[in-house]
Amino acid sequence: MNIINIIEKKVAGKNLSQQEIEFFVNGYTNGQIPDYQMSSLLMAIVCRGMDEQETFHLTQAMLQSGDTVDLSSIDGITCDKHSTGGVGDSTTIAVAPILACCGFKVAKLSGRGLGFTGGTLDKLESIPYFNVNLDQDNFCAIVNHVGCCVAGQTANIVPADKKMYALRDITGTTKSLPLMVSSIMSKKLASGAQNILLDVKYGTGAYMKTMDEAIQLAEAMVKIGTLAKRNIGALITDMSQPLSRYVGNALEIVGIIEMLNGKKSRLYEENKAVATRLMQLCGVDLGKAEKMFDQAISSGQAKNKLIEMVYAQGGQASYIEHPERFSLGQQLDVVALRDGYVGQMETCDIGYAVNILGGGRMQKDDQLDHGVGIKMQVDLGDKVKKGDVLATIYHRDKNVEQAKQLLEKSIFITDSKPLSTKTIHAYVDKNGVTML
Amino acid sequence: MNIINIIEKKVAGKNLSQQEIEFFVNGYTNGQIPDYQMSSLLMAIVCRGMDEQETFHLTQAMLQSGDTVDLSSIDGITCDKHSTGGVGDSTTIAVAPILACCGFKVAKLSGRGLGFTGGTLDKLESIPYFNVNLDQDNFCAIVNHVGCCVAGQTANIVPADKKMYALRDITGTTKSLPLMVSSIMSKKLASGAQNILLDVKYGTGAYMKTMDEAIQLAEAMVKIGTLAKRNIGALITDMSQPLSRYVGNALEIVGIIEMLNGKKSRLYEENKAVATRLMQLCGVDLGKAEKMFDQAISSGQAKNKLIEMVYAQGGQASYIEHPERFSLGQQLDVVALRDGYVGQMETCDIGYAVNILGGGRMQKDDQLDHGVGIKMQVDLGDKVKKGDVLATIYHRDKNVEQAKQLLEKSIFITDSKPLSTKTIHAYVDKNGVTML
Repeated sequence: MNIINIIEKKVAGKNLSQQEIEFFVNGYTNGQIPDYQMSSLLMAIVCRGMDEQETFHLTQAMLQSGDTVDLSSIDGITCDKHSTGGVGDSTTIAVAPILACCGFKVAKLSGRGLGFTGGTLDKLESIPYFNVNLDQDNFCAIVNHVGCCVAGQTANIVPADKKMYALRDITGTTKSLPLMVSSIMSKKLASGAQNILLDVKYGTGAYMKTMDEAIQLAEAMVKIGTLAKRNIGALITDMSQPLSRYVGNALEIVGIIEMLNGKKSRLYEENKAVATRLMQLCGVDLGKAEKMFDQAISSGQAKNKLIEMVYAQGGQASYIEHPERFSLGQQLDVVALRDGYVGQMETCDIGYAVNILGGGRMQKDDQLDHGVGIKMQVDLGDKVKKGDVLATIYHRDKNVEQAKQLLEKSIFITDSKPLSTKTIHAYVDKNGVTML
Repeated sequence: MNIINIIEKKVAGKNLSQQEIEFFVNGYTNGQIPDYQMSSLLMAIVCRGMDEQETFHLTQAMLQSGDTVDLSSIDGITCDKHSTGGVGDSTTIAVAPILACCGFKVAKLSGRGLGFTGGTLDKLESIPYFNVNLDQDNFCAIVNHVGCCVAGQTANIVPADKKMYALRDITGTTKSLPLMVSSIMSKKLASGAQNILLDVKYGTGAYMKTMDEAIQLAEAMVKIGTLAKRNIGALITDMSQPLSRYVGNALEIVGIIEMLNGKKSRLYEENKAVATRLMQLCGVDLGKAEKMFDQAISSGQAKNKLIEMVYAQGGQASYIEHPERFSLGQQLDVVALRDGYVGQMETCDIGYAVNILGGGRMQKDDQLDHGVGIKMQVDLGDKVKKGDVLATIYHRDKNVEQAKQLLEKSIFITDSKPLSTKTIHAYVDKNGVTML
């Protein structure tokens, strides 16, 4: 087998065999295939595509390039979720304890933020002493004991993806359905859970800009997960405004606590959809799952479960009971410059504003300030008058004027109400797409 | 300007601007753009194509990456030809002196053989002491004095192509019309002649396998040459059998001498088409050019001109008058194993047979034996009986049995005559395609 023949076969529009796919994934991972041949092949895949079987074999080959998480020591039904990323996407940290309250086991490996999206691990680390670096035994022990645990990858999970993703990033080969699907799904499958809920975001604050693209990606991922014998579904979620009104690390924890205290919001709605669809995948009737969700919140159990998880992972659980203890930055309001409706948001730029305040990373090794961020004071569709507060900036005197300008340009006041301000647009599972 | 944006623009199917094309050609040539980004861009070009303007800008940017040949010191009308390569393609060495006899100036830079095709410089070097390494002043002086000169590149001509071609070769990005056109045309334009005849081969002994592909390539190259204000045309020539019956370095010189002595053959027909079309591009009526061609041969002037050129380039001109002086290998006949017609040839494999005998290169630095090769004893369409000689191998005991087996498998004896055994199929110029 020869990499040039494989490249030429793909350019000619032919399907690659399982053996050919394993050959290039393994060859690239172990360094036998150089970057310049891999980037050429990746571009051929971008242009010519891959069918479902090829994408499945690619996912499997990537999955097998490293370690997988062994959840066999966990008693009960294991659940996992994955969001394609967005601004103010505080889902995991609320959904994990809620599901644990409902009797499911959530063993969640999360990542850090880069670019305009935040990272779950960064958000959790705004709780003093919270430890995301757990070995597999500790991780499983906490899941068994508490019901949920959120940690970083320690094992060598899908090294093929690490190398391929870094190369795709600098060779213009990121936009490819089979490459995106195999990148996400190889990691999800390696994480070991039986039931997986994907949350595919689209809009101005997401990588996918249109609903069609989001549905295509969701369908492709659901197919691969189903072929890998997992129970899997995908929500199609709006990201044309921040999902939580709180954007930034500690601020998002504050927003999660508010939500777990029962406050209704877009975040509440989103978390409910994610948690109940996951329960449905685990075999619970959707109506029953919704009641279980509301009960977990109204009883205070979900918040107590979060406290339990924070405690188990070494964090100062008192911060969950007293979120006023978080050391947030100084406040500066951004106001409406005219009367009208909150018509549109450049949601990515709201994420970037948090970034330049010091709350996110431009480069991998940047240090974060957990206390800076933005609290949105309006949702899309709200009527505002000139001078009304649109958002509050939490800052430490760094780039505050630039962040303010960026926010003023990111929140458009329009004469008419936006057509739709829906949060959840569709659900995709092995039976197809259901518009909601 | 940023290479990732340029790659993404091409993947999206958009046209690149002149500035963007210059950016990546210069950036890659000077090492600022690494191989892995260039191979990704090249693959995007393979998949998405380039229009005429982009191909022209690419050709120009490559052309400008290095030195160009200055022919301004040459008195008269300068002509150049280029063949896309084939087996037994002994055109240049005959056509150059013929055109010189007819009053034109041929300043020809040629290359060496690699793979199944021979190289003009290697063929010339089978004449003892023939010197292909001339500086620009000597080269132009010989052209002025003799009327023709065939030499190797000494100046740093189109370094962008050297680097890009080497990368394309190992990244599966060779098959692309704009990349092939810009590679060939940047070098042709850099060689400085005003009148250019291209000879695009197709068939089992050429890179292009079908007439359609060959015509497409020819049309694209003629367009670029015309945009660069050259008089340019292209012949579409059959390569489903060796062009000359002589294949191998010294053997091809023997075949050229035979042709210059007036022997009619496919090689004669081909050389006549190349030379007369070039004269037509220089403004001579085609009928008149044909008479001039026949006259140059029948008068013996063309052969004398070759002797003059060999002499001027330091070679032993007596070999042209006495081709029996060439030290050829021992002979071994390959015979027909059944009665029938010579129906089809795997012409590439006839080229490879010469290669394994020691007459060609597999690697750039391989040493050649100029005296080995193959003399075809039949043409396509000839009727043969079992035991008739199909070809004679000239060898030095190296790989002779393998070469014989390869030839037996390469020359198919069939029950019916092949449909066409035409040499020249079409002519392409700025007015379009003329089928011949």
